[in-house]
Amino acid sequence: MSAAQAQPVILLVRPQLGENVGTAARAMRNFGLTRLRLVAPECGWPNAKAVVAASGAYDVLGATEVFADLRQAVADLEYVFAATARARDLAIPVLAPEAAAEEMHRLGAAGRPIGILFGPERTGLENDELLTAQALITIPTAPDFASLNLAQAVLLLAYCWFRAGIQVPAAIDPAAGEPKATQAELAGLIDQLLADLDAVDFFKSPDRRASLAPVIAVSLTRRGLTRSEVHLWRGIFKELARGRAGPQRH
Amino acid sequence: MSAAQAQPVILLVRPQLGENVGTAARAMRNFGLTRLRLVAPECGWPNAKAVVAASGAYDVLGATEVFADLRQAVADLEYVFAATARARDLAIPVLAPEAAAEEMHRLGAAGRPIGILFGPERTGLENDELLTAQALITIPTAPDFASLNLAQAVLLLAYCWFRAGIQVPAAIDPAAGEPKATQAELAGLIDQLLADLDAVDFFKSPDRRASLAPVIAVSLTRRGLTRSEVHLWRGIFKELARGRAGPQRH
Repeated sequence: MSAAQAQPVILLVRPQLGENVGTAARAMRNFGLTRLRLVAPECGWPNAKAVVAASGAYDVLGATEVFADLRQAVADLEYVFAATARARDLAIPVLAPEAAAEEMHRLGAAGRPIGILFGPERTGLENDELLTAQALITIPTAPDFASLNLAQAVLLLAYCWFRAGIQVPAAIDPAAGEPKATQAELAGLIDQLLADLDAVDFFKSPDRRASLAPVIAVSLTRRGLTRSEVHLWRGIFKELARGRAGPQRH
Repeated sequence: MSAAQAQPVILLVRPQLGENVGTAARAMRNFGLTRLRLVAPECGWPNAKAVVAASGAYDVLGATEVFADLRQAVADLEYVFAATARARDLAIPVLAPEAAAEEMHRLGAAGRPIGILFGPERTGLENDELLTAQALITIPTAPDFASLNLAQAVLLLAYCWFRAGIQVPAAIDPAAGEPKATQAELAGLIDQLLADLDAVDFFKSPDRRASLAPVIAVSLTRRGLTRSEVHLWRGIFKELARGRAGPQRH
């Protein structure tokens, strides 16, 4: 079984607008999904507006399969999910997108061909079409405004599928690879700054110096600095303090 | 602070197509986001195509604020995320959408106004616009087809924000009690430092200034500063730069 066969087939049932088919193809392609099937497309097929909206996802459109009815379109699939805006009382399990995505990866890894049904723009899937599925997927939305269009629903489920299949680091710290300043280097930086501030009588009184010096030190170094940042700040303080002092530089 | 104030402001920088603004508003509204700002919209505003594409998200469009430049648009925000397709070498942390969404809920629960920047359709955000942000967000995609449009990117981040809020982690911010500096205050601090450094010819050449200025800004502000820290640093730079300048102090 190839990697492509382990991914869910996206099935658009009676899609009405070519733009939405194209935008769905683009959404799929961003997240590594390439298998698209259209069931009795009302928009006709092939469709020029779909090509424009696909923004380069031509491999998806070129391989799109068209079926006259839903039963034929799912005949080779073993497990079918159906996206529906309303959780209906159909005695079929209803999954959140993330849980459905994990299930898809389990099934795909086990070699079981899977698909996701999406209904027409205006009405969504009919009850008898939903009953073709082994599980429903409902995308949670604000209760007072559930108005995702077809391509948006495809995008979100494709994203969740992609996300469930990869381990992306939660955060990349760009300074991670850079050598960190030692405590001695940080102390040297603070000492220099305090000396420069003393030279311009910044603190005015020993009490004020005693209370402000630690605040300054913490503000500049509490998250750590790289060694190159310490050099940079030393240069800044030095030049600020000496730059206007006299003729030696200007 | 109201619930609306705890949600991220969505900022579209120089959007080119009204449809995309409308589709973004629809995407936002599905996931409970209602605060939209446009920065120098190239599509013009108000925009009839945006109204059509919003599919009923008229409360979002009706409350949309328009700003002439980015600095004004983020002036009242304390923490800004920027969506970018390419993780660039900018010394700003890069977060996955889900991690960013959790951070947004923590910041929002702590009463800190936040925003998410999105760039123009064709080019995305410029480097100097990205440097306005405290963190970047990169939506993971298939490596050979990273082609999300503006409204799709808004949709995915709005969804992740909504999803992360269904289970809000207990918000613990050790500096929660102290008022944070706004973006305008941080920008003012950096502007002052750069002017002081220019006055002493710290950078020597425009190229060196262009490469060092963002490093300095990030180094000083990447973790945010409290308002009192901004005052402290402004005082430090001022006194260092002027302290030895002439007879007024010595």
